[in-house]
Amino acid sequence: MIFASDNWMGASDRVAAALVEAAAGHAPAYGNDPLTASVEAAFTRVFEREVAVFFVATGTAANALSLAQFAKPGGVVFCHRDAHIAVDECGAPEFFGGGSRLHRIDGPGGKLLPADLAAAIAAYPAEAIHHGQPAAVSISQLTEAGTAYAPAEIAALAAVAHAAGLPLHMDGARFGNAVAGLGVTPAEASWRSGVDVLSFGGSKNGCFAAEAVIFFDPARARGFEFHRKRAGQLFSKSRFVSAQFSAYLEGDHWLAMATHANAMARRLAASIAAVAGAVVALRPDGNEVFAAISKAADARLREAGAVYYEWPPAGLIAAPLDNEMIFVRLVTSFRTQPDEVDRFVQTLSAIDA
Amino acid sequence: MIFASDNWMGASDRVAAALVEAAAGHAPAYGNDPLTASVEAAFTRVFEREVAVFFVATGTAANALSLAQFAKPGGVVFCHRDAHIAVDECGAPEFFGGGSRLHRIDGPGGKLLPADLAAAIAAYPAEAIHHGQPAAVSISQLTEAGTAYAPAEIAALAAVAHAAGLPLHMDGARFGNAVAGLGVTPAEASWRSGVDVLSFGGSKNGCFAAEAVIFFDPARARGFEFHRKRAGQLFSKSRFVSAQFSAYLEGDHWLAMATHANAMARRLAASIAAVAGAVVALRPDGNEVFAAISKAADARLREAGAVYYEWPPAGLIAAPLDNEMIFVRLVTSFRTQPDEVDRFVQTLSAIDA
Amino acid sequence: MIFASDNWMGASDRVAAALVEAAAGHAPAYGNDPLTASVEAAFTRVFEREVAVFFVATGTAANALSLAQFAKPGGVVFCHRDAHIAVDECGAPEFFGGGSRLHRIDGPGGKLLPADLAAAIAAYPAEAIHHGQPAAVSISQLTEAGTAYAPAEIAALAAVAHAAGLPLHMDGARFGNAVAGLGVTPAEASWRSGVDVLSFGGSKNGCFAAEAVIFFDPARARGFEFHRKRAGQLFSKSRFVSAQFSAYLEGDHWLAMATHANAMARRLAASIAAVAGAVVALRPDGNEVFAAISKAADARLREAGAVYYEWPPAGLIAAPLDNEMIFVRLVTSFRTQPDEVDRFVQTLSAIDA
Amino acid sequence: MIFASDNWMGASDRVAAALVEAAAGHAPAYGNDPLTASVEAAFTRVFEREVAVFFVATGTAANALSLAQFAKPGGVVFCHRDAHIAVDECGAPEFFGGGSRLHRIDGPGGKLLPADLAAAIAAYPAEAIHHGQPAAVSISQLTEAGTAYAPAEIAALAAVAHAAGLPLHMDGARFGNAVAGLGVTPAEASWRSGVDVLSFGGSKNGCFAAEAVIFFDPARARGFEFHRKRAGQLFSKSRFVSAQFSAYLEGDHWLAMATHANAMARRLAASIAAVAGAVVALRPDGNEVFAAISKAADARLREAGAVYYEWPPAGLIAAPLDNEMIFVRLVTSFRTQPDEVDRFVQTLSAIDA
Repeated sequence: MIFASDNWMGASDRVAAALVEAAAGHAPAYGNDPLTASVEAAFTRVFEREVAVFFVATGTAANALSLAQFAKPGGVVFCHRDAHIAVDECGAPEFFGGGSRLHRIDGPGGKLLPADLAAAIAAYPAEAIHHGQPAAVSISQLTEAGTAYAPAEIAALAAVAHAAGLPLHMDGARFGNAVAGLGVTPAEASWRSGVDVLSFGGSKNGCFAAEAVIFFDPARARGFEFHRKRAGQLFSKSRFVSAQFSAYLEGDHWLAMATHANAMARRLAASIAAVAGAVVALRPDGNEVFAAISKAADARLREAGAVYYEWPPAGLIAAPLDNEMIFVRLVTSFRTQPDEVDRFVQTLSAIDA
Repeated sequence: MIFASDNWMGASDRVAAALVEAAAGHAPAYGNDPLTASVEAAFTRVFEREVAVFFVATGTAANALSLAQFAKPGGVVFCHRDAHIAVDECGAPEFFGGGSRLHRIDGPGGKLLPADLAAAIAAYPAEAIHHGQPAAVSISQLTEAGTAYAPAEIAALAAVAHAAGLPLHMDGARFGNAVAGLGVTPAEASWRSGVDVLSFGGSKNGCFAAEAVIFFDPARARGFEFHRKRAGQLFSKSRFVSAQFSAYLEGDHWLAMATHANAMARRLAASIAAVAGAVVALRPDGNEVFAAISKAADARLREAGAVYYEWPPAGLIAAPLDNEMIFVRLVTSFRTQPDEVDRFVQTLSAIDA
Repeated sequence: MIFASDNWMGASDRVAAALVEAAAGHAPAYGNDPLTASVEAAFTRVFEREVAVFFVATGTAANALSLAQFAKPGGVVFCHRDAHIAVDECGAPEFFGGGSRLHRIDGPGGKLLPADLAAAIAAYPAEAIHHGQPAAVSISQLTEAGTAYAPAEIAALAAVAHAAGLPLHMDGARFGNAVAGLGVTPAEASWRSGVDVLSFGGSKNGCFAAEAVIFFDPARARGFEFHRKRAGQLFSKSRFVSAQFSAYLEGDHWLAMATHANAMARRLAASIAAVAGAVVALRPDGNEVFAAISKAADARLREAGAVYYEWPPAGLIAAPLDNEMIFVRLVTSFRTQPDEVDRFVQTLSAIDA
Repeated sequence: MIFASDNWMGASDRVAAALVEAAAGHAPAYGNDPLTASVEAAFTRVFEREVAVFFVATGTAANALSLAQFAKPGGVVFCHRDAHIAVDECGAPEFFGGGSRLHRIDGPGGKLLPADLAAAIAAYPAEAIHHGQPAAVSISQLTEAGTAYAPAEIAALAAVAHAAGLPLHMDGARFGNAVAGLGVTPAEASWRSGVDVLSFGGSKNGCFAAEAVIFFDPARARGFEFHRKRAGQLFSKSRFVSAQFSAYLEGDHWLAMATHANAMARRLAASIAAVAGAVVALRPDGNEVFAAISKAADARLREAGAVYYEWPPAGLIAAPLDNEMIFVRLVTSFRTQPDEVDRFVQTLSAIDA
């Protein structure tokens, strides 16, 4: 009953096997190897267009360097109030942007609304040197509320960003879960809807450590290799990231894993929703479930070995929690088993004394 | 006959096996797992004292963040003219130091001399705000010339650094080769000789991607975790670096691999030195051989499949090369085979037409 | 009828005369001159304690460098939502802090409340690397709402900051107006109430360009001279800033000018408050008046030559403005004349057609 | 006998008068005033083309921000070994460039030679990510050796820079002295010879504090206003810099002052050269004289009240100094009097006991 985070999980057998296989041989360093070339080709197939792909070590690096590519002096990046870049990256986007500001905007269900984005951008008119200048817009897919932007929602935000001359970045730490959950193609969930640069995450969904920055217009990636190298993010044995992505992408292994994790989350949400007293905050679009449960149930679950985090409810649930309830986040993974879900819900639903 | 670089090699079987084993389970993220704790303990055993250990993605990150911990406005880091931090890290040390300057100092055999270091530091007197202020001293072990600083040489530089109130950083991308080559303990090659912070490299010597920053006085590591996180260098599945280091350190596997690579380099150097017309630049202390060979031999070797880099001879060889010679670097690894070495030298020594 | 900003005004005669006098001679550069030494002594007298004083070119530089002295990786500076550092400095505090974040907190009348500050700081617990780490608290005196923190209010915020180990910075671009308005000593308005570092502004109150950073504990200024020089903020002919401050401080000229400006603001506010239909937002503590006036009056005033800015009412006035009203900021200065004020109010109060 | 530095001098009467005149009135802040507009027009006349002009507080700021406009990740700025940006700006160019590196190149008489510049740039080939990437070339006019680049010398360096796609920056802290010394037009000494951006210094030549960044192609200045504001270098009362430049440029006052200072330097150099035992290092092109004098003469001069700095002779004089000699820098100014020069030389030439 490990629902703490998808990054608590190990790596998929196929990904592990690919890494071991690559360990045997030798190859040019710094990404100048055949395996890396083949993975770049695989990304082009996955996204149905030529893309520029850059591996980095972490999702934080992927986000911060994506945004650094578009940094300006006094630059402002617009994002959701709860965005990972704003809450959980220790100022990396600000640092790599040479002092960028993250302008945080509230929005329901973890999503930015186009009108709110437009209003925020409008607070930095071009002639107002003192305020700074808009540099980029960043959204998360899945959002921090476990929801997924539909292509039309992305397109509406992209329209606002592009009208202001700003690129649209997508933090896709759980991009696989979003694509699987939406039932659209990777292209539809990204560039066809106006995304310019994507942090494509593999670590949370079955890899050891495999993250990539993907520019959908390779011309806009010009010079990015210097950003990456200067950041200490160019692996000498870069092909070991390639090996992971190779297995990850092959035969849509990544989408199969995400689909499984999503199914486990839906099963979990549906079951919790049926428990008296428990409340599921939002319909999960991916592999995250947010719920209010009783403190008594929480105690029983902890005792039974369930692992998960208490979570700030703000923005995820309308009514304030009563004192006997706590709010929690439950994350499923490629490895979550149905019986784990079922045991969790049985323990949860045992009648509170 | 792959002598291009030790980072062209894959990973050792033991390291690969440890990674696969760790892939199976689950564990807390961000280094809060038992395996990471056990590896931290292993480092303490290896270095015979309590140390603060931080994993990062690359050697460049290890170096740049080590130095960032001691950064100052207008700060100056003193290093050898050919230091990796100065030549091959795309300005990462400057960037992470908020605009640090690398003051490069020449020195024979890739090594800094204490008197030259002292003179360089003296050019930044404390009251001369305009020039900037000394921040740290950095040396490489192995050096970029393939030599190793003996403990007494390190101690003499440490004395100069410490007298000026500066920490001594060691870029240990090939620390294992240096320790094995010197026949001293890891402690003697580092903190017992005055090193304050070490970039401990595993990637070049049998790991996939395993680098660590080691502070010998944990008190001086205060706040470093924010440097690392802000740099996008905190792996969520940090235990996969731990798994590599676990196998790497266990039973002195790392020193066995380094000892093998060093023996191959000595065999290579000795054999080349016996070839008429070829010149070995410096006695290798580790796993790197620098040599001048004839262009004809170079052509034969390339044709026979040998892989290695031509290298700038400056500082490594006294006399200028004649026009029929080229200068090359040959790097051995934990996986280099004696017959590779022998075939190389046989091809080299075939009489030039 | 120039009420646009106090920085639209020229310089006082005494300040100008001092500058001309200093222009005649010669003196050592970079602040190593007798006049600068005497001004440093004058600041010590003004603040009734030894202080460390550093001249800089602008208020933005004073603020950004003050905060840079306390910067940390992933560092967070807490300030009011409308703080000048957050709204009008084009990311300078973020830039000089190496990517600092400004955490903006709402508060009535332009002021932070201690409980809100404490709650904001508590969102960055020491062990939560991901969120970043608190670095400093910054307040403005006068605030952006034209109010002044009373010593007890400062002390309450200082207590919160200090309990969290954070320094308290004060943006004193209008410190003279605040001191004059409060009727307290400069010491009471700053360090006696817990302020650790002050941006002391002269430019808005009768100087050409004279701004200083004042550390109340000189030990905490260690190394600041490198911050200033690296920022390009060390004037070679630094004594020309000294000359301005010399005249500014002598005989409390600065407080006399501020007292005059404040009196003009009070006269303005009282007169406007007496006009039917006009609303003064807040009792002015210094030289800024915020008011709602009718669009018709605005047109008349503009026609009569009055100069002032329309201003966002948010946070300054409780009720939403009706469509026939606009919100404006009126700033008086050391040079504002009573008859300017009176003409303004007469024009304002002419009956709207 | 003040020959310490031109920045020890006060300001010219005309410049002081202009400042006082401007002090009386009021005007829009931040450079949106008529006087600033007229000064911008004056610069266009001086340089015989439309230029983009930005005032900043110091020469260090002018240099560092000029270069920041062209910064790149891993960017390298090429300059002379003794360049002010490399020796005397406390890392400001590195800092504002986000970690730029200054690649220092030796050269006779304080000047870069085109072949040496080309070789230095060639060490950073476009495909070598690890080394970083060329970003700009910077030269000083006057150089740090008191010499001036002739237009043809500038053009030759510009050709090398432009061939590599790099802008040519000129540190013109003593641009007036150079123009006067060369007997060419300001245009010939700058953009007509290929200079792209100029730090135009006024402070050393009769102003209080007046420095400007001048882009000869206004299109390349795009966004620079954000660099300046973010650096805390936008004066609110910017017109007081305009006032200085207004008087400075009017009627070629600046060139008259520089011509005078240069004449004093030539008189000084010629007289010293005639003194037995004293050696003038280089023919002065502007207002700086470097000379070797006896220690006995030095003692006499100090006693007589002469003020000047001992200076490192490296690069300025061919033969090593004997033990009885010291090397000194003597700087004249707009205010240096012939009799000061004559007294200096008389004291110098008194026969050593």
